[in-house]
Amino acid sequence: MKIAIIGPGAVGTAIASVLDTLDVTLLGRQDKVMTFEERDTGERKSIPVKALSSVTTTFDVVFIAVKTHQIDTILPQLKTITHAQSKVILAQNGSGLLPKLEGYDAYQAVVYISGEKQEDKVRHDKDYRIQLKQDAFTEQLKAVISTTALTLELEDNIEKAIWFKLIFNLGMNTLTALSRDTARLLKDDSMLELCKNLLKEGLQVANAEGITYEDSFVDDVIAAYRIFSDESATSMYYDTMNERVTEVEAIQGYIYRQGQKHQLHIPYIETTYTLLAHQNEVRQR
Amino acid sequence: MKIAIIGPGAVGTAIASVLDTLDVTLLGRQDKVMTFEERDTGERKSIPVKALSSVTTTFDVVFIAVKTHQIDTILPQLKTITHAQSKVILAQNGSGLLPKLEGYDAYQAVVYISGEKQEDKVRHDKDYRIQLKQDAFTEQLKAVISTTALTLELEDNIEKAIWFKLIFNLGMNTLTALSRDTARLLKDDSMLELCKNLLKEGLQVANAEGITYEDSFVDDVIAAYRIFSDESATSMYYDTMNERVTEVEAIQGYIYRQGQKHQLHIPYIETTYTLLAHQNEVRQR
Repeated sequence: MKIAIIGPGAVGTAIASVLDTLDVTLLGRQDKVMTFEERDTGERKSIPVKALSSVTTTFDVVFIAVKTHQIDTILPQLKTITHAQSKVILAQNGSGLLPKLEGYDAYQAVVYISGEKQEDKVRHDKDYRIQLKQDAFTEQLKAVISTTALTLELEDNIEKAIWFKLIFNLGMNTLTALSRDTARLLKDDSMLELCKNLLKEGLQVANAEGITYEDSFVDDVIAAYRIFSDESATSMYYDTMNERVTEVEAIQGYIYRQGQKHQLHIPYIETTYTLLAHQNEVRQR
Repeated sequence: MKIAIIGPGAVGTAIASVLDTLDVTLLGRQDKVMTFEERDTGERKSIPVKALSSVTTTFDVVFIAVKTHQIDTILPQLKTITHAQSKVILAQNGSGLLPKLEGYDAYQAVVYISGEKQEDKVRHDKDYRIQLKQDAFTEQLKAVISTTALTLELEDNIEKAIWFKLIFNLGMNTLTALSRDTARLLKDDSMLELCKNLLKEGLQVANAEGITYEDSFVDDVIAAYRIFSDESATSMYYDTMNERVTEVEAIQGYIYRQGQKHQLHIPYIETTYTLLAHQNEVRQR
């Protein structure tokens, strides 16, 4: 099984690293070498990156790990490196990009791998966990990677797993980015209340999509947030503080549009999504 | 009529300048000299500032022109420089601070004077216009300043004038500060929609307070915003971009609390006020 990973960011480089005993190629804009470091142990290794544009061979499995707003830039090359039986796995934040992969046998993954990229260095913080819909192919993939440290969780209801992470991101990514504060913000009662209101609206949209959770869902998510230290932040916080474009369209934008589709009144999401989307527009001027 | 102005900021220095043919003293933290410049003509003059703490004489009229969140710092000295018949005029943004002046004969002004302060220099942009409740004192004050370029508009219904400016500030101050963009943001249809929703909720609160406007009120405010050039910004925008504390409590906070008092559901104001208030908290850490 020949595996390619497109996007030498934190997630892509971590997948390439954890699978490096298999036939794996990490692809990027140009030939280079990434330095990959485990935060806990300080252990480092070099991960070679090949220029996607120079690849002429095909792969059986392609993980797409570029930022959601960069997907259009790699679609032309994707044709070249796949064959009729290739499987494509979207290993990205959020949802809503599968329609861009029409004609491919494509899967939306839910990725739990956290780390940070700075130039040609990736520091892995925690988790090597990916959720995928259970079927014959993913069972086979699971067997192939069983010798590695990557955990593949096969889900009967992948939509439920996708929405869980969407809503999880909706609360904390939104508030850390807009208030420019870390997880400490939950100590502000008004921010906690706003967080709950965002989660409740997110849940309302998920319900309209036919996804249900336990009654304690919102409280459970808040409890999970509280596990993080005060200094913890989100990818959208770091993108904001560094004036980079955020992945708002694949997370808040996706949720908001599903809400619109069901004609839901979701003013907390509407307000925060509008502000985040406009900040992106300003950054792209 | 001996007049004092506390706060050598853009508004305080402009009032001291425009009234400089009268018996006027500009008071600040320390003795210094402000440079005051008219943007249109480039004309400059020097305006002396006396340290408030060193003043032992009393004044008949005291304008308070410090930032709304700084008012507590000048209250002890206010006692020293006033007598039993002194009038105190709050020449500040927003509303809600009159209760701090219990025991004084105090007026909430609505100030239309725009300019910018940088260190010891104030550049006046436009307008020398102040609205006050009409009564015997304000009639007398109007007569005294009639020889100057300061326009005093005496209002039968000062609450209506206060709420007009509050709502005017609610739309544009909120959105420029949170999106970190200038008046250009109105070209983004989603931001325009959010702006209208904020204004509608502001109007709802004003209505609950017994203040009514024309049916076209929201459209009129939007039309007024559109007069500004794309590059125009608000005081809250500049405070945000310079990481300074904003006057959110006297504007959005005041409106939100009045809404709470009437048990109104105002999620657009709630969301944006919560974010702005939390940003202030982060800046004051």
